[in-house]
Amino acid sequence: MSTRLRNHRIRLAARPHGEPTSTDYQHDVVDVPSPADGQVLLRTRYLSLDPYVRGRMSDAESYAAPMEIGDVIVGATVSEVVESAAEGFTAGDVVLSYGGWQEYSVEAAESLRVLNPDGAPLTTALGVLGMPGFTAYAGLLAIGRPQPGETVAVAAATGPVGSAVGQIAQVLGARAVGIAGGEHKVERLREFGFDAALDHRTPDLGARLAEVTPDGIDVYFENVGGRVWDAVLPRLNEFARVPVCGLAASYNATSLPDGPDRSGQLMGAVLRKSLTLRGFIQREFAPTMFEDFLREMTGWVESGRVRYIEDIHEGLDSAPDAFVGMLRGANLGKTIVQVS
Amino acid sequence: MSTRLRNHRIRLAARPHGEPTSTDYQHDVVDVPSPADGQVLLRTRYLSLDPYVRGRMSDAESYAAPMEIGDVIVGATVSEVVESAAEGFTAGDVVLSYGGWQEYSVEAAESLRVLNPDGAPLTTALGVLGMPGFTAYAGLLAIGRPQPGETVAVAAATGPVGSAVGQIAQVLGARAVGIAGGEHKVERLREFGFDAALDHRTPDLGARLAEVTPDGIDVYFENVGGRVWDAVLPRLNEFARVPVCGLAASYNATSLPDGPDRSGQLMGAVLRKSLTLRGFIQREFAPTMFEDFLREMTGWVESGRVRYIEDIHEGLDSAPDAFVGMLRGANLGKTIVQVS
Repeated sequence: MSTRLRNHRIRLAARPHGEPTSTDYQHDVVDVPSPADGQVLLRTRYLSLDPYVRGRMSDAESYAAPMEIGDVIVGATVSEVVESAAEGFTAGDVVLSYGGWQEYSVEAAESLRVLNPDGAPLTTALGVLGMPGFTAYAGLLAIGRPQPGETVAVAAATGPVGSAVGQIAQVLGARAVGIAGGEHKVERLREFGFDAALDHRTPDLGARLAEVTPDGIDVYFENVGGRVWDAVLPRLNEFARVPVCGLAASYNATSLPDGPDRSGQLMGAVLRKSLTLRGFIQREFAPTMFEDFLREMTGWVESGRVRYIEDIHEGLDSAPDAFVGMLRGANLGKTIVQVS
Repeated sequence: MSTRLRNHRIRLAARPHGEPTSTDYQHDVVDVPSPADGQVLLRTRYLSLDPYVRGRMSDAESYAAPMEIGDVIVGATVSEVVESAAEGFTAGDVVLSYGGWQEYSVEAAESLRVLNPDGAPLTTALGVLGMPGFTAYAGLLAIGRPQPGETVAVAAATGPVGSAVGQIAQVLGARAVGIAGGEHKVERLREFGFDAALDHRTPDLGARLAEVTPDGIDVYFENVGGRVWDAVLPRLNEFARVPVCGLAASYNATSLPDGPDRSGQLMGAVLRKSLTLRGFIQREFAPTMFEDFLREMTGWVESGRVRYIEDIHEGLDSAPDAFVGMLRGANLGKTIVQVS
């Protein structure tokens, strides 16, 4: 059966210099292979677009090996089993996979997690109940450790990580301050019940942030960097914790910013305020925390305690533009491509 | 009795711009006051010179309130009770105090710790068995947490903090790499049994450090900053811990260094390698760890497992030059002034 199927793929044609452009991609259509023993053939339903993928397009040192030229662009997917050569899987099963930017993929059965189609919407497995939601949960609980009454700040706060950070912080009894790009996003943060919401484009961001954090900031969940970080640093309290899971503002940067060199000043703040800066990738905590996350977060989502936004684009061909838009902050919520 | 005594003091006359000079100090001689109820009159025997004092001479934001113009320069002292108006203290007792740069001081009894004159040499209460030794112990055990076989690096490694860091790391089963300024200091590190020792003035510090850390660096105890940190950062392993207790290289800096701005690059390394940077002041850990420290460290010193160097200057008038020398790294070991 699978021999008659054709697979549309988007592959890496060149390493982007700055923002990815159309010439960095190559589209092709190839025959769909049959699954070998222990594998399944999957049809992609939803493709997740995530900032870390920009890092893997470069060959600079990173926490994950770079893609090779010619590789299908990577990405998590919600996929449906078309043909199974693996025990425990049958056609029609819906799974969380890592199929990438293509319509079909063949995967080893042990790499898949079966999703319950009668539970939360399937797309949530890529967002609030998936890697982004777990990044928020693990970074807050394992590193940020907000205490009741403390102030937690987060940027890209309508994004899938940021919106979960703020709302989980409130579940834990902390005050949530969200920073996002544009008034329409700030409005959504207010709807979500953030205790304060700011537009990072406001010219006096530092002063505005000071107004809404009268007791300083105890946890800053860093996923952006850049000028939000510049505004946050002076507001951090003694013993503040800074989980660092991303620096989206600099992912397209092609050179270091002009001086002066403020790296020593940053270390000085770490010393003076007894700060904790801790980088992390969610997979570090998955073995010990993912099960608790899935149980707790599913409960919070089902009860409406934690809300989420999704930004769904139609068709695989929309992925390159949607990806650049997400890196620019043009998206609202979790960026997903509906592939089939 | 005390009314006939005269007290030579060194006070802050002006906030230093860069390296402190003689015009930043004012020497005077005043009558020694009598102790009020609950106080004791102390004669300073040994005065400790420590890098943090440079920070307190400035009015820039710091972890401790700045000194005021006219204040006696601060510093820990080993002092002898001359006259007591406090229960539990009698003339002749030797105490750890915070008398500062003067020959006599009057202190509240509850701020003092009585020293055993028959134990370790009294000067050790200012160094290996005092605040510097405890800084090393607490930073390593509470933040650095070296595991057996891991590599611990430290700069200013013949200094009172650095030499304790390296030797405690070895007690814990880790490999100790010491960095210090000048061949004579490197020689001392070898005598102390550091697994590797480097001169930070070597032009190819990064390459030399790579040679002696073939398995990377798991804990870097940061008390210097500057170009040692630049050489260390690329050698840090995933999940490395960086206790930050000082940045001596920049204490006399009067402006930010030229660009490019590498602060974002530093955050990038934190993210990529899942680093922990944690500033701390030893007093954070004193309530929970000081007693254990004193017991363990005294044992290590008495058994010769932990060795130390002291650099003792004669007379209170030697303090200003000795202080500048210490900030320049001209000292070898713990800088102490023998006042009387």
